[in-house]
Amino acid sequence: MLCLVTATDPGWAERAVDELPLLLADHAHCEMKAASNALSLAARLPEHPSICRTLVALAKEELEHYDAVLAELERRQIHLPPPAVDSYAADLRAAARREGRPSLQEALTDRFLVAALIEARSCERLSLIAKALATRGETALALFYDDLFASEARHYTTFVDLAIALSGDEPRVRARLNSLAAAEGAIAARLGHLPAVHG
Amino acid sequence: MLCLVTATDPGWAERAVDELPLLLADHAHCEMKAASNALSLAARLPEHPSICRTLVALAKEELEHYDAVLAELERRQIHLPPPAVDSYAADLRAAARREGRPSLQEALTDRFLVAALIEARSCERLSLIAKALATRGETALALFYDDLFASEARHYTTFVDLAIALSGDEPRVRARLNSLAAAEGAIAARLGHLPAVHG
Repeated sequence: MLCLVTATDPGWAERAVDELPLLLADHAHCEMKAASNALSLAARLPEHPSICRTLVALAKEELEHYDAVLAELERRQIHLPPPAVDSYAADLRAAARREGRPSLQEALTDRFLVAALIEARSCERLSLIAKALATRGETALALFYDDLFASEARHYTTFVDLAIALSGDEPRVRARLNSLAAAEGAIAARLGHLPAVHG
Repeated sequence: MLCLVTATDPGWAERAVDELPLLLADHAHCEMKAASNALSLAARLPEHPSICRTLVALAKEELEHYDAVLAELERRQIHLPPPAVDSYAADLRAAARREGRPSLQEALTDRFLVAALIEARSCERLSLIAKALATRGETALALFYDDLFASEARHYTTFVDLAIALSGDEPRVRARLNSLAAAEGAIAARLGHLPAVHG
């Protein structure tokens, strides 16, 4: 799906939905981290107003999702614990670290591609969650996850487009995306078993 | 004004508006920092969903302002440079540092009060900017700053309310606010001369 090179174990979503409180709590934290990350990227790129505007719009959308997940947690009287360490994102960022001293442009292009991969994986897994919820009669929540699935797919494309806009070298960005996607596939296969959006 | 103990030099706004490109650029960065700060506070307080919701709503509002300032910069073909070091905020945070090891609750209550003071000072200075712009016939921009003045006043109240909600001890929070306001007054008097929201 999208640029992903490994598929999530088909049994994962059933097990994750068995632990819906943990899954929803992790999901709330993911939306907050996505919004904060978009703003931290915008703050680094003041000389690119159109990139900033796109990132701010994306952050606002993530905050809408955060609010919606928070409301779902409250409806279900689920306590939101502090976020767990995000090994998936940390390992992905480590895999993107380059030898030597990358330019600021290279480093930020890589941050866009890492964000694109996180969105792609979210997209795959939120779709699996939507299906698992639907089979359990959780229709409203299944529809919510279906909507989010579509947003994550759009955000994936946005981040790849931003990487290309910033670097100005589409073939190079696509090649780098493929190489990071290979690393992401290995990380997701190793870590993606927990009741959490990225595992 | 609000809890401020010193007033900005009445000549400041005229001098700041003389350098409108610098002032607008600094203002854009201030809105982005305010949004990021609100999200970083929300991420630290997952167990307080109603505080999180308030902070996320505030962050979204700051992002609307950021977008509006960015549009104004583009209309005037003003380049947005990277943000300068924010000595005002850094000095204010340093003034709020406590002896010994504050609890997480104390540290976060102080962060709310520091944010409240920054909003209060923004409120005072955006109002001065609005008046200086109006006398120069910059009517649309003056009205925009007048609207922002009202938002900043509201945000000041919000942050004080959040500090009280988190601490649960209003008299103690008010006393701490007064002591930090004294420090803020000295910092603003020392630094507040540049064409920048906080100088």
